[in-house]
Amino acid sequence: MRICRHVKKLAPYTPGEQPKAKNAVKLNTNENPYPPSPRCAEVLKKFDPDRLRRYPDPVFSELRKELAKLHGAKAENIFVGNGSDEVLAVAARCFVENGEKIGSLDPSYSLYKTLAAIRDVEWRGNDENAALFLLTNPNAPTGTAKTKAEIAAFAKRLRGVLLVDEAYADFARENCMDLATAKGNRNTIVMRTLSKSYSLAGLRLGYCVGPEDLIAAMYKVKDSYNVDAVAQAVALAAVKDQAWMKRNVAKIVKTRERFAAELERRGWDVMPSEANFVFAKPAHRKAAKLFDDLRGRHIYVRYFRGPKTGDRLRVTIGTDREMKKLLKAIDELDI
Amino acid sequence: MRICRHVKKLAPYTPGEQPKAKNAVKLNTNENPYPPSPRCAEVLKKFDPDRLRRYPDPVFSELRKELAKLHGAKAENIFVGNGSDEVLAVAARCFVENGEKIGSLDPSYSLYKTLAAIRDVEWRGNDENAALFLLTNPNAPTGTAKTKAEIAAFAKRLRGVLLVDEAYADFARENCMDLATAKGNRNTIVMRTLSKSYSLAGLRLGYCVGPEDLIAAMYKVKDSYNVDAVAQAVALAAVKDQAWMKRNVAKIVKTRERFAAELERRGWDVMPSEANFVFAKPAHRKAAKLFDDLRGRHIYVRYFRGPKTGDRLRVTIGTDREMKKLLKAIDELDI
Repeated sequence: MRICRHVKKLAPYTPGEQPKAKNAVKLNTNENPYPPSPRCAEVLKKFDPDRLRRYPDPVFSELRKELAKLHGAKAENIFVGNGSDEVLAVAARCFVENGEKIGSLDPSYSLYKTLAAIRDVEWRGNDENAALFLLTNPNAPTGTAKTKAEIAAFAKRLRGVLLVDEAYADFARENCMDLATAKGNRNTIVMRTLSKSYSLAGLRLGYCVGPEDLIAAMYKVKDSYNVDAVAQAVALAAVKDQAWMKRNVAKIVKTRERFAAELERRGWDVMPSEANFVFAKPAHRKAAKLFDDLRGRHIYVRYFRGPKTGDRLRVTIGTDREMKKLLKAIDELDI
Repeated sequence: MRICRHVKKLAPYTPGEQPKAKNAVKLNTNENPYPPSPRCAEVLKKFDPDRLRRYPDPVFSELRKELAKLHGAKAENIFVGNGSDEVLAVAARCFVENGEKIGSLDPSYSLYKTLAAIRDVEWRGNDENAALFLLTNPNAPTGTAKTKAEIAAFAKRLRGVLLVDEAYADFARENCMDLATAKGNRNTIVMRTLSKSYSLAGLRLGYCVGPEDLIAAMYKVKDSYNVDAVAQAVALAAVKDQAWMKRNVAKIVKTRERFAAELERRGWDVMPSEANFVFAKPAHRKAAKLFDDLRGRHIYVRYFRGPKTGDRLRVTIGTDREMKKLLKAIDELDI
């Protein structure tokens, strides 16, 4: 065997399309419509290229200290990865033995199934016996959120590790971070990313907070130098500028509420969202048809085939101007 | 089980020390003493931070095209990773089934054993039945190189995949790249890194060239967005400036030859090196003792315990000035 059997069978994860057209309205991958903190730009501009000669800090000491401060945790509770992608992959290698299962909500972030297939273990929806349960909250693609109390109760029932993927938590009313930092927490890890609320999807920076023994295990399994020197420096600047992030989040939440109301006014069924997107069912057209028609006008939203998702579109919240363009197109196409 | 049994047992890989002292002479992790191409600095300075809002190109189209051109290959023959570390980890997940083995030379790059332990498979030295054989050429920590003919013959005998780790090939007289691009190549992958010859250890950029089916398998297993937008842009600039890289390499090779001769003049046993370091046995002191004494003077070299490596030091080639400082210290300590 040259290529592993399970790899041969793998269907790779399909990331959302990155259109090349300059005038495209891109509302398909939950990116932030506003730029990252100007302090990030400054770090890039002033970065001494001679530092790149040297290996980066393998344990991101400065960034970890800042994240620990932000969340009232110790550096020992914090793991940093090359995007949440890597945090998830490392967790799948740390907490799931061969023959065990990975669970998640269903529907949820479509990468999780791919992740289980890559790890060569079974994925099962809503399985409380999973060795690792990946719970996106607020969930994607629905945008709906469970309460912290519900998640705390779920963590208690679970026999394995619970990883709460809080990629969208900055857009929500509450979050579960204090479950991760609580004394006596044995099995709950809360993950964040700089991709959405901090406008840094291009930088690849995710992290998680959890019990010291679980976090220490993740450090053993990661690549030796998994976050480059530029990313560490830019991320540090972004995390230090909480005000900038929160201002952008507030704008997006405002646009989201306005946009959801506009869709409802047009007869769409919109799920109550606590994320930077809405998941909604068109009033007249089939979702798949409308997706194609919008694409024809260089307006990109996301469509997920399947019985649980196929009648809706997931629309990232962009600027007010972008949402207006989309509404105008809907008025012409969804009739 | 919360943490996997094999992870609990893992001893993490120990990267070389990164001393904090400003006046330290750092010759311990095979970093390049000269800065990266000025074009890299320019890319950093001009990088539009607004691009970081968006996910990076998941398949590094521009960089791959440039690397393909450089090596006379197709883009389909090229895989890019977050450092060679990731390329190796992905190969270990793609080409090694549970219960199979990873092989390498012995001694060789100490990460390989850790990699096998993380993948939870057996590592075995010089095992031609390994599913994946990691062959560093020139080898580390020895610096010695096998000829291309020897490696071609070895690839033919091997039943699994041969990954030739050419981290140091730019410092050597020949390399095996055309085994990777040869028509009819079934099992040979050649890996390169921008960490050494391109002075970009801090950037995390490694890649490999090999048969289309093996490379396609690696794309299926990698994290979706494994190389960030800044790293892709800086790497592209570095690869395009071959003249800069080659000029630095020529300087380092010259210094290496001069330094090796100086050591030999002092009675050291120096292995013939084709890399940016030498592996040498002190004339008078035990290697471990000399390592400590040099460290006391803020001169950092590398010492690997063990029967095959413990009587030597691995010394990275720095600037002529750094090597002079080291020789002066040796004259005072190795007596």
